[in-house]
Amino acid sequence: MDRRKFIGASALAGSIAFAAPVPEKPAAQAPPPDVTRILAKYLVAAELKDIPDPVRKEGARTLLNWVGCAIGGSRNEATEIAVSAMHPFFGSEQASLLGRKERPDIFNAALINGISSHVLDFDDTHLRTIIHPAGPVVSAILAMAEYQPVSGADFLHAMILGVEAECRIGNAVYPAHYDAGWHITGTTGVFGAAAAAGKLLALNEQQMIWALSLAAAQPVGLREMFGTMTKSFHPGRAAQNGLTAAFFALQNFSSSDHGIEAKSGWANVLSTTRDYKEITDHLGDSFEILQNTYKPFACGIVIHPTIDGCIQLRNENHLTADQIDRIDLKVHPLVLELTGKKTPQTGLEGKFSVYHAAAAAIVEGAAGERQFSNGTVNNGTIVALRSKVTAVVDPSINEDQVRITVTLKDGRKLEKYVGHAVGSVTNPMSDKALEAKFSGLAEGILPSEKIRSTVELCWNIEMLAAVEPLARSAAL
Amino acid sequence: MDRRKFIGASALAGSIAFAAPVPEKPAAQAPPPDVTRILAKYLVAAELKDIPDPVRKEGARTLLNWVGCAIGGSRNEATEIAVSAMHPFFGSEQASLLGRKERPDIFNAALINGISSHVLDFDDTHLRTIIHPAGPVVSAILAMAEYQPVSGADFLHAMILGVEAECRIGNAVYPAHYDAGWHITGTTGVFGAAAAAGKLLALNEQQMIWALSLAAAQPVGLREMFGTMTKSFHPGRAAQNGLTAAFFALQNFSSSDHGIEAKSGWANVLSTTRDYKEITDHLGDSFEILQNTYKPFACGIVIHPTIDGCIQLRNENHLTADQIDRIDLKVHPLVLELTGKKTPQTGLEGKFSVYHAAAAAIVEGAAGERQFSNGTVNNGTIVALRSKVTAVVDPSINEDQVRITVTLKDGRKLEKYVGHAVGSVTNPMSDKALEAKFSGLAEGILPSEKIRSTVELCWNIEMLAAVEPLARSAAL
Repeated sequence: MDRRKFIGASALAGSIAFAAPVPEKPAAQAPPPDVTRILAKYLVAAELKDIPDPVRKEGARTLLNWVGCAIGGSRNEATEIAVSAMHPFFGSEQASLLGRKERPDIFNAALINGISSHVLDFDDTHLRTIIHPAGPVVSAILAMAEYQPVSGADFLHAMILGVEAECRIGNAVYPAHYDAGWHITGTTGVFGAAAAAGKLLALNEQQMIWALSLAAAQPVGLREMFGTMTKSFHPGRAAQNGLTAAFFALQNFSSSDHGIEAKSGWANVLSTTRDYKEITDHLGDSFEILQNTYKPFACGIVIHPTIDGCIQLRNENHLTADQIDRIDLKVHPLVLELTGKKTPQTGLEGKFSVYHAAAAAIVEGAAGERQFSNGTVNNGTIVALRSKVTAVVDPSINEDQVRITVTLKDGRKLEKYVGHAVGSVTNPMSDKALEAKFSGLAEGILPSEKIRSTVELCWNIEMLAAVEPLARSAAL
Repeated sequence: MDRRKFIGASALAGSIAFAAPVPEKPAAQAPPPDVTRILAKYLVAAELKDIPDPVRKEGARTLLNWVGCAIGGSRNEATEIAVSAMHPFFGSEQASLLGRKERPDIFNAALINGISSHVLDFDDTHLRTIIHPAGPVVSAILAMAEYQPVSGADFLHAMILGVEAECRIGNAVYPAHYDAGWHITGTTGVFGAAAAAGKLLALNEQQMIWALSLAAAQPVGLREMFGTMTKSFHPGRAAQNGLTAAFFALQNFSSSDHGIEAKSGWANVLSTTRDYKEITDHLGDSFEILQNTYKPFACGIVIHPTIDGCIQLRNENHLTADQIDRIDLKVHPLVLELTGKKTPQTGLEGKFSVYHAAAAAIVEGAAGERQFSNGTVNNGTIVALRSKVTAVVDPSINEDQVRITVTLKDGRKLEKYVGHAVGSVTNPMSDKALEAKFSGLAEGILPSEKIRSTVELCWNIEMLAAVEPLARSAAL
């Protein structure tokens, strides 16, 4: 008698977790691979020494960018409401709220930091799926790192693995899942948070399987909520749900062994298409965090080329507003469709004005949250300069391109063509630009010595004996 | 100029909230009615004086049954794990865990009581949708009632409205939503909890709309988790999510105005079919809680007729095991398919043995959790009697029927035909039977004076100046 028949597919698949499954039947009839177990097995067995240097480096960049966004969003109305609503229910003082002084239990910290980090829509983006990967993952484990000692190396590793889990699951169902109406950051983020928290809790394989399935049962976020505070609630709640999944699984709270791939599991119920190979293939050989990108500017991506070009022109030519006679932009059609507001009155309206964005970029050399404040939008110099900006659609210009001509009062013409705006995978923000973005977000919220120390702790994350000082440094 | 064109559909629909919408276009092209607003408007405006007496009475019955189940499940392994996992993160001592001594913050109380109340699968059932309505709703508001003073009348009203919201939303998408793989108790329960908690917080119309949309963004539960502890996690998490939605909305945390019916809203994303009339029609004129049912026996519904008949025979004839020569059952085919285990060894196996269930019902006159314990399944008298039980399939017997013949040693034959097993809408459990079920669940967990006082407080819910004593009475 062939005993293997009685071991079951799960156990067998476990032993070949790193090999591509070899289908015995035609694909249409084959049962799905043991996806949840394969992923769990990888997460449990993974070791930091096997993570290549560029992946670790990108992890530090993702961390720095995320911490800055969480600090920058810490005084937003949505964040204030979340703190105020949950304050009476906080547990003991376990974890920091970035940019703030309150110290809730780790679950409320994960929720509120998650909201804070996404509320400006300035956090990182996995462009293939439009997932904002760090929010759910880092909100969960940064809070954990204040509750139990976690080394920077373990933290970085857990973060990389959490991003890996959520983005792979996102890859498997994108775009059908997103098109159906799910806010993919919240629905996949819960897996990322569970995986990362589970790694820090040293879950065994069965526990990690259950953590992933507990995550599968708690998807968060509908696209209908875009444009409301609830959008930023999604990554915060996903962080909390993933944390819950990990802590329950640690105590052997049982769940399905097939939460992702079962007939009534996550991928079938929440998507009309799915490609499990995106989850199971090349685990440990490819890293989704290498596809992570950071927004250099605090506005919609269509005017990023214009801002990028204007800042370059300013810096290369030491431009000041009073030298300028006119600014002519040749832009992609979407630019005027989405951001054609000529005379914005508020900071928010400024985000929908390519004219304001160009003028502010020339005058201030930046386009952070401050450049989209009510004050800057009504700054006399910038208002005067924006009236000198014209923009025309040029069908030969792509979405990440712009052609800028600045005509000076002395008759000179300065030209700038941007082929790939900064912030894409092709033309990523430099470390220095990430630092400047961080400072722009944190200034006025954290004292300057805390800004400096937080940046340094993020860059040195892998060397830290404990991560708690980083969280403390980023809070008041 | 017709100014009404500029008011927008939302405002107009608000003014005709209680009338059926009059479609101006063919149904296929008509936009959905303003479902979220119509439901919110009803919830906000509803007054207890308009709730008919039988509805209030059913509310008290639902409450009594739910409290008993939560106490009965309070020592279950899933509940113990939940307490143990969350204990380090409890906030201040705000609310009771039924059947236990710990006092967490209201959010953790809602989670854990929700788990505890469903873990025996013995709680109430809205048969049309298979929703277990009380779990998410009562877990949320009973915790709230210990945090802020709530009168029994307001509590009962909020509970009835919460059940109304979740069951109507369930009616709108059942069975497609359930068939797709969602655990409908968790996915609709979050609306019920948000509605009930929102009512107690006296949300205004806009806030109630946002609470419902915040609920829409947090569905919980996949059917894949059935058979694991995660199933009971679903109503607990739904309670917590609904509570979060209500407390956030109270502080004007914004969300969609159309979370239920929008293109990327709950009903479109989570179901392939939907009938909004189930939500919007006859609000205030019909009450779903009248369709709520209570399980008399702690096992699968297919052997309920057998147990019902055996208990009747026992009580009518003062039967004892030593009088009996044989017991012959004519049953529906599913009975032997699902519960044909002849020699169960454990309490859990006993739930899958019609032979054990019949014998225990004759000997002990009940079929609660105790009758499905390891001890009772191995009780000598019951083991001896169960060997005298035979069961044959009779195709003329329906699922809620049985034909029983007990042959006594003195030659007499006692016959019992059960046409509708107790516990259905047609043949509901009596108040006395609900009390007995409660006692069976609570004995050994609560002292007898607490059992008596809790039953009394549940029956008198509408008269209570405050609900807190009820929660205290049901805890240690």
